[in-house]
Amino acid sequence: MFFKELHKDTKTNARLGIISTDHGTIETPIFMPVGTQATVKSLSPDEIKQIGSQIILANTYHLHLRPQEDLIDRFGGLHKFMKWDGPMLTDSGGFQVFSLGKGFNEEGSEHESLAMIDEEGVNFKSHIDGSNHRFTPEIAIDIQHKLGADIIMAFDECTPDTATEVYAKEALERTHRWAKQSLDAHNKETNRHGYRQYIFGIIQGAKHKDLRIESTKEICSLGFDGIAIGGESIGYNMEATNEILSWVMPLIPSDKPRYTMGVGYHPLDLFTVVAHGVDMFDCVAPTRIARNGALYVRPKTYNALKDSLESNAPLRINIRNARFKDDTGPIDPECDCQTCTTFTRAYVHHLFDANELLAFRLATIHNLRFFLKQMEDIREAIKEGTFAEMKVEWEDAAKKLVTSN
Amino acid sequence: MFFKELHKDTKTNARLGIISTDHGTIETPIFMPVGTQATVKSLSPDEIKQIGSQIILANTYHLHLRPQEDLIDRFGGLHKFMKWDGPMLTDSGGFQVFSLGKGFNEEGSEHESLAMIDEEGVNFKSHIDGSNHRFTPEIAIDIQHKLGADIIMAFDECTPDTATEVYAKEALERTHRWAKQSLDAHNKETNRHGYRQYIFGIIQGAKHKDLRIESTKEICSLGFDGIAIGGESIGYNMEATNEILSWVMPLIPSDKPRYTMGVGYHPLDLFTVVAHGVDMFDCVAPTRIARNGALYVRPKTYNALKDSLESNAPLRINIRNARFKDDTGPIDPECDCQTCTTFTRAYVHHLFDANELLAFRLATIHNLRFFLKQMEDIREAIKEGTFAEMKVEWEDAAKKLVTSN
Repeated sequence: MFFKELHKDTKTNARLGIISTDHGTIETPIFMPVGTQATVKSLSPDEIKQIGSQIILANTYHLHLRPQEDLIDRFGGLHKFMKWDGPMLTDSGGFQVFSLGKGFNEEGSEHESLAMIDEEGVNFKSHIDGSNHRFTPEIAIDIQHKLGADIIMAFDECTPDTATEVYAKEALERTHRWAKQSLDAHNKETNRHGYRQYIFGIIQGAKHKDLRIESTKEICSLGFDGIAIGGESIGYNMEATNEILSWVMPLIPSDKPRYTMGVGYHPLDLFTVVAHGVDMFDCVAPTRIARNGALYVRPKTYNALKDSLESNAPLRINIRNARFKDDTGPIDPECDCQTCTTFTRAYVHHLFDANELLAFRLATIHNLRFFLKQMEDIREAIKEGTFAEMKVEWEDAAKKLVTSN
Repeated sequence: MFFKELHKDTKTNARLGIISTDHGTIETPIFMPVGTQATVKSLSPDEIKQIGSQIILANTYHLHLRPQEDLIDRFGGLHKFMKWDGPMLTDSGGFQVFSLGKGFNEEGSEHESLAMIDEEGVNFKSHIDGSNHRFTPEIAIDIQHKLGADIIMAFDECTPDTATEVYAKEALERTHRWAKQSLDAHNKETNRHGYRQYIFGIIQGAKHKDLRIESTKEICSLGFDGIAIGGESIGYNMEATNEILSWVMPLIPSDKPRYTMGVGYHPLDLFTVVAHGVDMFDCVAPTRIARNGALYVRPKTYNALKDSLESNAPLRINIRNARFKDDTGPIDPECDCQTCTTFTRAYVHHLFDANELLAFRLATIHNLRFFLKQMEDIREAIKEGTFAEMKVEWEDAAKKLVTSN
């Protein structure tokens, strides 16, 4: 059995479950670190395991451009290419391609629109060298078969939140058609590399309740192994995410794992989606902000530091802050990561100050371990029936921290 | 006893020895990895140990500017600050400061002269923020006491090779005066952090035989714990290095360790200095070129590859070369490093191609382990009486490789 619900919380919709793949099992709910280009930036596979990662992501768009799926296919798939022997998931490439179409890159700076959608797929230009490429459902699935992740995603159109309901409905019809095509293409070859690949469908519908409900019903009817909730807002606008989840989650059958794509910017976001019964989520934020020196800390640690910090981002410090120059303590005294158990804030501050490569690794290890440990604690709390209390405790602590600043 | 000669080669002047410090012993001859800013770029202390480093360097000039010696002093010295518990060595800052004075930076690009020498020391501007600083022998020793390396260096003037004999002689007189002042300053406090620090004097004299001989006699007469051979040519011009060593090495007493500063650009350079009886050497090349994708390989590996490479740098490949894009082999099949025993050339090529941080680490691990393993093999060969043969074998292989290209 691919997914099994093990335990349901009584006070929230949180649940414990287990996903079984040929590369190992995953205890849910789980945060999934992102390894965009077949590497979790700055970490070795040993370290990815050491911090407690049960599954990691890679991005179809990036790997299609470089080093290309045929090369990875010849190596027997991503696991062998990057020497990660645990479960993996690839996205369909849709999110990145449609971001190109919006004329904005990941960091939000404007550029010429690099993608053109038609009814059968999307033409786009590589952000690296401007070369022309095309994704259709069949192509996206073929690439993902070659990449060989344990879980792959249907090709969908990620509609901007600013889309009118008319456009969003048109896009949703394409997404539903493409979902069926993705599933059909997948069912022709589910174990190219000698192990089973599973496929998830993706619910879209932007911020329109009727479309989201329609999409949920449609996607859940098609026979996917799991159900994802996609869209521009998911993870980036937690108020909207919360509202969308309140519409769609009650309609998703409990025998399927549920995956919010792009959630995990802030520690509190993890509680939000877990309380809705979400089982899986991923986000580049913990690793990306780590490389800028932004590090998560637990409520107690933040409380002890906040008066000496300039920012009021709750549960986060920036280690570049001069306040840490001479600080002999670990980043978060309650953290069990290799960075916190070995190095001082002063040393990590020095590494950032001196633009040293080790800084990126130590910061990444901390932020990822922070989230993965938080998820371990969340799973334990669900088991013990104390998840609702844990959620309120963190939320209250964070709120107090913001208002007191 | 700080240094003990254990065995002398009969066919060359190579020798085996042991250096004992409060942070552990060092089997000589040894290559010393460079950790300029209190970090061997991209590596964790665990990895530095794993690759077989017996001692590492740090740079007084860089640490004086950032994070400054007083901060490191408050942490109990460099070992505790960077969490490296093995032996360490700091240079005196002279080499970097006089490089600033030359009006060229490390990469050879021109800039305004940032240093002014006088009889008592040197005034210089920080390359980071232009702030004013001064080094004298007493200041350089005080900084090195605070940094707390096991082996520290006298403050000297590193004279350019282009200096006239008149200027070189003047500079040498300063260097000799500064050597005595350095030793006096050091003898006032040899264990600031609760363990013994040892001090080496530095022979200068540019390319002038009479000055080199004079300097050797003078420096060896002063009671230093070890003797270094410095100068612009050392390590960067191996022909000149060879000649200078032939003048000075016979004059250095055998009970002192001998250290050529800046040697270790190419695998063959290690044989050259070891054959002269040099015990210690360091160079930033293996780590710096690694970050550009230039990786050392043994004669057999290079021979198998050379026809498909564009460059004719013997015993070195550039992993960025498209030839490695699809290559399933390790960088060097004869290498026992973590990179070679885990990853393929294709994966390392991909990481460089995609500008991924892990590339720098994997390349650094390989190049450093290559040198450290070569030194292990050299020590074994000296012990077995086969060092001369090993040297000729590598040199012949490299020569053949160049001419056949």
